[in-house]
Amino acid sequence: MVLLESAIAKIHSLDKDAMDKVQKHLDNLTKPRNSLGRLEELAKHIAGITANDKPKLKHKVIFTLAGDHGVVDEGVSAYPREVTCQMVYNFLRGGAAINVLARQAGARVIVADMGIAGKLEMEHIKADNKHTQFHDCRIESGTDNFAKGPAMTPSNAIRSIRAGIKLVEKECQLGLDIAGTGDMGIGNTTPSSAITAVMTGKTVENVTGYGTGINDEGLHRKIRVIKHAIAINKPNHHDPIDVLAKLGGYEIGGLAGVIIGCAMKRVPVIIDGFISGAAALIAVKLAPRTKDFIIPSHCSAEKGHQHALAQMGMKPLLDLDMRLGEGTGAALAMMLCESSLRILEEMATFSQANVSEKLG
Amino acid sequence: MVLLESAIAKIHSLDKDAMDKVQKHLDNLTKPRNSLGRLEELAKHIAGITANDKPKLKHKVIFTLAGDHGVVDEGVSAYPREVTCQMVYNFLRGGAAINVLARQAGARVIVADMGIAGKLEMEHIKADNKHTQFHDCRIESGTDNFAKGPAMTPSNAIRSIRAGIKLVEKECQLGLDIAGTGDMGIGNTTPSSAITAVMTGKTVENVTGYGTGINDEGLHRKIRVIKHAIAINKPNHHDPIDVLAKLGGYEIGGLAGVIIGCAMKRVPVIIDGFISGAAALIAVKLAPRTKDFIIPSHCSAEKGHQHALAQMGMKPLLDLDMRLGEGTGAALAMMLCESSLRILEEMATFSQANVSEKLG
Repeated sequence: MVLLESAIAKIHSLDKDAMDKVQKHLDNLTKPRNSLGRLEELAKHIAGITANDKPKLKHKVIFTLAGDHGVVDEGVSAYPREVTCQMVYNFLRGGAAINVLARQAGARVIVADMGIAGKLEMEHIKADNKHTQFHDCRIESGTDNFAKGPAMTPSNAIRSIRAGIKLVEKECQLGLDIAGTGDMGIGNTTPSSAITAVMTGKTVENVTGYGTGINDEGLHRKIRVIKHAIAINKPNHHDPIDVLAKLGGYEIGGLAGVIIGCAMKRVPVIIDGFISGAAALIAVKLAPRTKDFIIPSHCSAEKGHQHALAQMGMKPLLDLDMRLGEGTGAALAMMLCESSLRILEEMATFSQANVSEKLG
Repeated sequence: MVLLESAIAKIHSLDKDAMDKVQKHLDNLTKPRNSLGRLEELAKHIAGITANDKPKLKHKVIFTLAGDHGVVDEGVSAYPREVTCQMVYNFLRGGAAINVLARQAGARVIVADMGIAGKLEMEHIKADNKHTQFHDCRIESGTDNFAKGPAMTPSNAIRSIRAGIKLVEKECQLGLDIAGTGDMGIGNTTPSSAITAVMTGKTVENVTGYGTGINDEGLHRKIRVIKHAIAINKPNHHDPIDVLAKLGGYEIGGLAGVIIGCAMKRVPVIIDGFISGAAALIAVKLAPRTKDFIIPSHCSAEKGHQHALAQMGMKPLLDLDMRLGEGTGAALAMMLCESSLRILEEMATFSQANVSEKLG
């Protein structure tokens, strides 16, 4: 916990000076002021995060963190548990949606085992491809079933966050100009709904959706399980480590760590959908300044996500009815971040282009 | 008019067979069904437009059409008229926002003079760059002031539409897999508001905004001018050529032609913001089947645009408070179109990746 606190203490504020310089430059470019709307805000935001009025996005990374969930025993997911592991192999072969969209965005994908239940077979892990790397950060083989007690110990909750911070530190050594978060974990909308309910104060019904595609009967069961878990575990919403330990997942803790790590290192971090949103609620509660370093990518079709975003005062860039996770929304938003910086770097000013300025 | 009618007769329907094949393939990819939301819809839509279940986007073009407007004499714009011409030079040197975003999207920019007021100086036009080509399609040197009579003759309205169709036909010879529309014309939110009011039945106040950045006094003047123009010209909303002739601009007619031309050639056409929306209202009224071939990119911050989209039953992909025009929103949406087809082409299926399918 001491190490975590010292990490959090290293988070600074946005650099207003860099933001002012960017605003001045944007206002001189050959377009009506603010006419590129949120693209201009993004450029300014990234300048503030990086403390650089000419930020570059050479090194882009999507962190796709995987974990399994004991609560799957309660029948809350439409897919069997082994899919978490199978999808990790799919990531490492480059065949998943996040691989496709990360390639388009020019980002590498860092896949980490934060706590998968099954044994990963090494021959699959070695079947790597140049866009994807694997890291073994396994804390435990899946969480415990939170319908019967806490999902993990408080010390494992802290370990998962620290592992996420370390992943960021490692990638910073290779070059990291912008990060996106992503998740893989069969059943992980259940802990995310539980965390979102506790951290936003919304009812469980309000933040619990169909996940990968359960039916109405499954949804009612999922809601019952979450309510029961909150009742027996009694998480303290003032204490994010307690909430993570009692209701979380290892990939959710890891993502909270990735978010905190990026804030420490002044790296813009684009959060994906519902699972990343739950992780962000934990991260922002632990270290409120992290909020300034987060770029919200999209609003998930999973119903709890909008409440998580609203709780943090964030307006997503995209709303495309997506609900896949893996970092897919973050990868799309990364292209918009790049657009914003290309505008900043490549557009001509009024004087360079001999274009007349506004009348009067 | 006969030539235009024969062009319109060549517009077919979406290819349901290609769409069904794409849906089947999407459902076999390693993700929950429909979990990529509008990206999946886009892939299916593009397959229907192109009548190809494996569509490719190798050749991408943004058509940025320029024209001037007599109504600028009434003081409806925040920028002087010469900026239209100056911005065309900026396009040809690659320094405008549309050049930047088209480069990112991998699209070439076709700049056409549909009716600029000033004389274009050849040395600027020759200062071309490899991403941008210029076409001289000038119908007239700007429209007439529609506050004093019709903006153009009906035959020039038809000529402008046919010129847009021809631009598409020319680009098809070089390769054209997807198109975006864009505009440049100081004052052109004024004719676009007038057209939108007449074609949607909304009040002028409801569809008239600040354009490039006039103040409240300017907005009231702009609304008065548009109401007066509609009162004296009496456009017939059942007759899109009459509306275009009385209230239009040459770039708006040209863009209506680009949209119709794309529909004829089964090329997906991404419409940009408010000006392109007014052009689409004309195109769809002339040839209702064109609607199926249009992909709406973004909702402009210019207030009339949402009403134009609603009138055509279109839900834009993006909403980023942009209001620049030039095709900037279309270029961003083009990247999403590419995402959708990369998903279709590059993702592994459940059986390829040995991933278990949904339970039950």
